[in-house]
Amino acid sequence: MPEHNLQVVLASRPTGRPSPANFNVVQAPVPAPGTGEVLLKIRYLSLDPYMRGRMSDAKSYAAPVGIGQVMEGGTVAEVIESRHPDFAVGDIVLSHSGWQSHAVSDGTGLRKLDPEAAPVTTALGVLGMPGFTAYAGLLTIAQPKPGETVVVAAASGPVGSAVGQIARLKGARAVGIAGGADKCAVVKDAFGFDAAIDHRSPTFAEELRAACPNGIDVYFENVGGAVWDAVFPLLNPFARIPVCGLVAQYNSTGPFEGPDRLPILMRDILTKSLLIRGFIQREFVDQRPAFYRDMAQWIADGRVRYKEDIVQGLESAPDAFIGLLEGRNFGKLIVQVS
Amino acid sequence: MPEHNLQVVLASRPTGRPSPANFNVVQAPVPAPGTGEVLLKIRYLSLDPYMRGRMSDAKSYAAPVGIGQVMEGGTVAEVIESRHPDFAVGDIVLSHSGWQSHAVSDGTGLRKLDPEAAPVTTALGVLGMPGFTAYAGLLTIAQPKPGETVVVAAASGPVGSAVGQIARLKGARAVGIAGGADKCAVVKDAFGFDAAIDHRSPTFAEELRAACPNGIDVYFENVGGAVWDAVFPLLNPFARIPVCGLVAQYNSTGPFEGPDRLPILMRDILTKSLLIRGFIQREFVDQRPAFYRDMAQWIADGRVRYKEDIVQGLESAPDAFIGLLEGRNFGKLIVQVS
Repeated sequence: MPEHNLQVVLASRPTGRPSPANFNVVQAPVPAPGTGEVLLKIRYLSLDPYMRGRMSDAKSYAAPVGIGQVMEGGTVAEVIESRHPDFAVGDIVLSHSGWQSHAVSDGTGLRKLDPEAAPVTTALGVLGMPGFTAYAGLLTIAQPKPGETVVVAAASGPVGSAVGQIARLKGARAVGIAGGADKCAVVKDAFGFDAAIDHRSPTFAEELRAACPNGIDVYFENVGGAVWDAVFPLLNPFARIPVCGLVAQYNSTGPFEGPDRLPILMRDILTKSLLIRGFIQREFVDQRPAFYRDMAQWIADGRVRYKEDIVQGLESAPDAFIGLLEGRNFGKLIVQVS
Repeated sequence: MPEHNLQVVLASRPTGRPSPANFNVVQAPVPAPGTGEVLLKIRYLSLDPYMRGRMSDAKSYAAPVGIGQVMEGGTVAEVIESRHPDFAVGDIVLSHSGWQSHAVSDGTGLRKLDPEAAPVTTALGVLGMPGFTAYAGLLTIAQPKPGETVVVAAASGPVGSAVGQIARLKGARAVGIAGGADKCAVVKDAFGFDAAIDHRSPTFAEELRAACPNGIDVYFENVGGAVWDAVFPLLNPFARIPVCGLVAQYNSTGPFEGPDRLPILMRDILTKSLLIRGFIQREFVDQRPAFYRDMAQWIADGRVRYKEDIVQGLESAPDAFIGLLEGRNFGKLIVQVS
């Protein structure tokens, strides 16, 4: 029996950028599984931008994490005690156990992973929520056609890298935006994008325009902020814009200084017949089997590649998460908990 | 043979609100039809908000009207001379002949109208482009479900009145917004909306909220401006927003004063999984046969009603059009040309 359950709890709600003081690392007793339950030892914790939203109590599609509660998050865990007929000690499962070292589950939402089929961390990235976000948003909402230009930001991250690679599989041109030369090199060389543009460049907007000589047909929006302003004038008639994240503005509190960009946006929505659609991957749950099948095959064929950024120890999670919101990670950010 | 062709041409491009000085009423020779052509005498001219866009040379889905050229517009006309095998003198046709009394056509885009089936002016309104805009935008993009709340502005106009009535035919609740008590009375009593709200009321936003106790599932955007701000906080998760017009901002030149509403819009697009889609009815051309069939039946059954505002004489067109942009019309605005 482990001695204690290490947890990261929400200490206070951030105003703007989160700080380490918004988190507390605490020790709690390890919970005991009841009949029909399992005790999980968390191996890996996924860190994702959506967690910034859970730290706020603004109205959203999901309830916020309460003060003093364990931060929410997807995890890969090992069953270390089982009183559940479907799970055996040693099983590796995908769970949503949050930022802690141990958790009890009644099996709801657990998915057994086969460590032989793929590294188990991929269940948090390319074969998990981020990969499915890319797959469902791109194929259901954006529906890129051969020859079209697909632009995505955070292109070295788990969503962006999958968006660009799937776009190319469908015959589209993929243009990735990333922060810094190292990330751009990976976007182009490892992920095979047609072009990679550094948003930190002083001539970013001009470079993006040059990389999109036929305009932009799909902008997969996962960052917001300054990238939007460079993309917006390049949108073609009938462009599609799935919106799955706005990490660049998660730390902004508003009100936002003018000029007011809404009338110009609405004008172009009208005159270019644009489609903008916010989404969260779970609304496309019926497509998950197709996703697992397609993506596993693409990875096996070497047609989709992925990159992970693994940090050590649960105590590192707050700092790693703060860095994620600033683009400090390089690839899918995962905490190795144990 | 008529003596001359009366025309309204674009004299200059407006900055902001158009004025009568932007138009010239001129007399031109009546054109002579060549082989395979017909000479049309225009009976009715449709005035529609989109024409404001054609007066500007800003980039749009359609080319602007040139300075000195006849203003563009849909018309109902009579064939008064025919050298075309498919058309006989006396035929009444829907054409796109613009703001003039006569025009020559080679038959392209002409559609014969049956004056016995419906008043020919309906081809410019409920059975024409505005009615089809309502039909296609509502049924293809918004897809209202029984029990949902559909909100539309300019609800006494040809698009808005059709949106609300079709929404009710599909089992949804229709809430109309209009300017003034007279228009609101027609929206509620003649068009059968569940509620009608006067946007000129000092408590407009509160009244709209009270009329939408379950929030808003569909906002059919055809005006923009202040109505948007009242609608926006009431949008439900998964709300759909077809955008077919922004008449309230057509006369605005920008830049627009802050605060910047774009980040808040994007935030709600994301957290509520909103869909915003600009469109122009002609992209749904394959649905026109279904529209003609359905709408004619609904009118015949008395399930869809319409209201026309007919002004006399082509010389009245500039002033009537300027009034349209300010909501001075009451129903589908049509000029009786001859």
